[in-house]
Amino acid sequence: MTTRKPRIVVVGGGFGGLYFVRALRKANVDMILIDRRNFHLFQPLLYQVATASLSAGDIASALRGILRHQDNVTVWLGEVVDIDTTARTVVLADGNTTRYDTLVVATGAAHAYFGHPEWERDAPGLKTIEDALEIRRRFLLAFEAAEREPDRDVRRALTTFVIVGGGPTGVELAGAMAEVAFQSLPRDFRSIDTRMARIILLEGTDRVLPSFPPDLSLKAKQQLETLGVEVRTGAFVTNVENHAVLVGNERIPASNTFWGAGVEASPLGRNLGVPLDDAGRVIVEHDCSIQGHPEVFVIGDLARVPFRNDIVPGVAPGAMQMGRHAARMVTNDLQGKPREPFHYHDKGLLATIGRARAVSDAGWAKFSGFPAWLAWAFIHILYLIGFRNRILVMLQWAWAWFTRQRGIRLITEEWAVRAEREHTVPNRDPPRPTPTI
Amino acid sequence: MTTRKPRIVVVGGGFGGLYFVRALRKANVDMILIDRRNFHLFQPLLYQVATASLSAGDIASALRGILRHQDNVTVWLGEVVDIDTTARTVVLADGNTTRYDTLVVATGAAHAYFGHPEWERDAPGLKTIEDALEIRRRFLLAFEAAEREPDRDVRRALTTFVIVGGGPTGVELAGAMAEVAFQSLPRDFRSIDTRMARIILLEGTDRVLPSFPPDLSLKAKQQLETLGVEVRTGAFVTNVENHAVLVGNERIPASNTFWGAGVEASPLGRNLGVPLDDAGRVIVEHDCSIQGHPEVFVIGDLARVPFRNDIVPGVAPGAMQMGRHAARMVTNDLQGKPREPFHYHDKGLLATIGRARAVSDAGWAKFSGFPAWLAWAFIHILYLIGFRNRILVMLQWAWAWFTRQRGIRLITEEWAVRAEREHTVPNRDPPRPTPTI
Repeated sequence: MTTRKPRIVVVGGGFGGLYFVRALRKANVDMILIDRRNFHLFQPLLYQVATASLSAGDIASALRGILRHQDNVTVWLGEVVDIDTTARTVVLADGNTTRYDTLVVATGAAHAYFGHPEWERDAPGLKTIEDALEIRRRFLLAFEAAEREPDRDVRRALTTFVIVGGGPTGVELAGAMAEVAFQSLPRDFRSIDTRMARIILLEGTDRVLPSFPPDLSLKAKQQLETLGVEVRTGAFVTNVENHAVLVGNERIPASNTFWGAGVEASPLGRNLGVPLDDAGRVIVEHDCSIQGHPEVFVIGDLARVPFRNDIVPGVAPGAMQMGRHAARMVTNDLQGKPREPFHYHDKGLLATIGRARAVSDAGWAKFSGFPAWLAWAFIHILYLIGFRNRILVMLQWAWAWFTRQRGIRLITEEWAVRAEREHTVPNRDPPRPTPTI
Repeated sequence: MTTRKPRIVVVGGGFGGLYFVRALRKANVDMILIDRRNFHLFQPLLYQVATASLSAGDIASALRGILRHQDNVTVWLGEVVDIDTTARTVVLADGNTTRYDTLVVATGAAHAYFGHPEWERDAPGLKTIEDALEIRRRFLLAFEAAEREPDRDVRRALTTFVIVGGGPTGVELAGAMAEVAFQSLPRDFRSIDTRMARIILLEGTDRVLPSFPPDLSLKAKQQLETLGVEVRTGAFVTNVENHAVLVGNERIPASNTFWGAGVEASPLGRNLGVPLDDAGRVIVEHDCSIQGHPEVFVIGDLARVPFRNDIVPGVAPGAMQMGRHAARMVTNDLQGKPREPFHYHDKGLLATIGRARAVSDAGWAKFSGFPAWLAWAFIHILYLIGFRNRILVMLQWAWAWFTRQRGIRLITEEWAVRAEREHTVPNRDPPRPTPTI
């Protein structure tokens, strides 16, 4: 009788899940990687899709393609909706249930709308490819509408863009939008001067990039202002409307708001029966497993791991390291070795602010300006998955560098919406992955 | 008193409209180019977006960007819904009206569902970027669903793809889908063998590529069959259902059907008050203007222009040539010269059938196989607009050539649909280009 291989179910193909799976590429295990999407997304460059620099395909790779030659893993496209840690099963949205010996939950986090989920309609966040394409659509559409708008105030609101949240996402988005409006677009319009657009970055605390050292926050603010971004700190959003944002009692007429604030961990953490923090992160043990269930690991943005006087930040290196650590613990178990605590190696912080500007805190040294930007570009190309993607992204950066243009200025919308409007498609059903014949 | 410049309104930024506008780049006129989309689309490569080889951004360029330095043209994003040839005005969907001295209508054509528009839901065509992304989504999703489907018959239907229409669109789509299923994907799945998929091409007449010489039709059929496509001629579709296609009384279980048959000209032709042919094309005068209105030109796929014993085919060179001809007639008018008849220069026909296979009828010679494919690749790169796009497309073709992989295997869907499912966005309005404050 042969011993059954341990069955490991991994939920989520982001940095945490993917690095876990790849770390076990030579292990004698059976892995199932389940993700709602069929691709791994390189989220750090998502803002460049939202600002028309890159195509979605440049920063995403099919998970099956990445793991094609790793025979100990099967990829499933599916959504895990429940976990039973007693029965050791996960339940999928289609009703199917699958058993595990070891479970890795790596479903990440999204933005939080401070208890106002209804704001999302008028202030989309930036977590998925669809989010990025929607932000691109609204951003570009605003200039198109302004070009033909006779009313001065409406035109003003159309070309006022508010970005909520002064963390890396908000800073990168604001910097890139300023470049598009002030450098790429001016020659393209006849009635409006896109240099009159307003890009307003709102941050609730007293400085942008609050997780960075104060002097780099100041540098970032200066670099943003050089690009033409209006940076407002200590600014709490009290409401988001169709064509305005309220900051305290002040009303900013702005037809487009984009959201990059707050953290709300994946709801799947609630199904584990262990304590969560205020943002819904799972409070894990030293080895990234959960209390009472050494066979369940929680890694990446969904895990709350103490680090110095704070916690491990929700950045890609944290997720990768936890993924590799959990893989090592699985190997330890197989070899009868004891578990070890996870130690976060702080690789520093990096945020880019437009063409050739960035701020970087590498721990042993702080950079800003061009050296920081070079480091940023190098690291992002290095961690981007796939040779093809690396070449394409480098090429497009080079092109954008020399021309100051943006290559992917497409306003697209939903197929069903267009199809219905143009050809009156009746009675449209959602496409059905599992048919009944 | 200075003479007012002639005001030329051009409706549609496809090959016809764009080549018209560019031909008049030095003319002393005021042009307004109106398009529903903000980009020019290189439609001949759209099937490569649908089959995961290229990104949408690789074959589309912002019209404003293309015409940035041409100061005699203004680009409007808008939809023309009516034309008043007596008052010389066009009416936009937003209610605005604009006057013209000369009008160029170049709004093209779509597929025709033989009087069954309800088939579109289950058999999307391939005319827009959204169409291509929807086809890509359904095509890739079918394999994902099959991988986890226990029922053999359902699995069989999921991996049976029917393409209706044996013209260039259908032939190119079928060839590319066969390559993906039989060459790119097999290593990526664990439960299914994607080489067992069926790609069925249905053509109503007695041969594929009916506009080509019969011997090239035969070559095309042989090349398709070598790739694994089932080619069925004389096959009339009598119904398209959710998971089946009916050919006569035969029922083919297939969860995905794609449409590339028939021609239905843009409905705007009906607003001109002149005779149309059965496909809704406008019957134009020898100079591409319409009867009784020498100041109105109809060009491209919307125009019916006699050629030899047939009409000018609905291909890019026809539209480009008519665009340039109409521009020359405008110049003639300005210089007091008489109008001239349009002469179509037949550059031949080309259709590609997968990697390194194609058929070509250049008039003076017929090619098939690799020489035809080389000609095809060269011509498509040559006419693709934008240096950036040319480099990116060539690079991705080279990558696909050597790896036989497809780079853009993303299953994406509508932002609003995803947002609603994941975060319960309430009461979603369509985004509004023109706000009221």
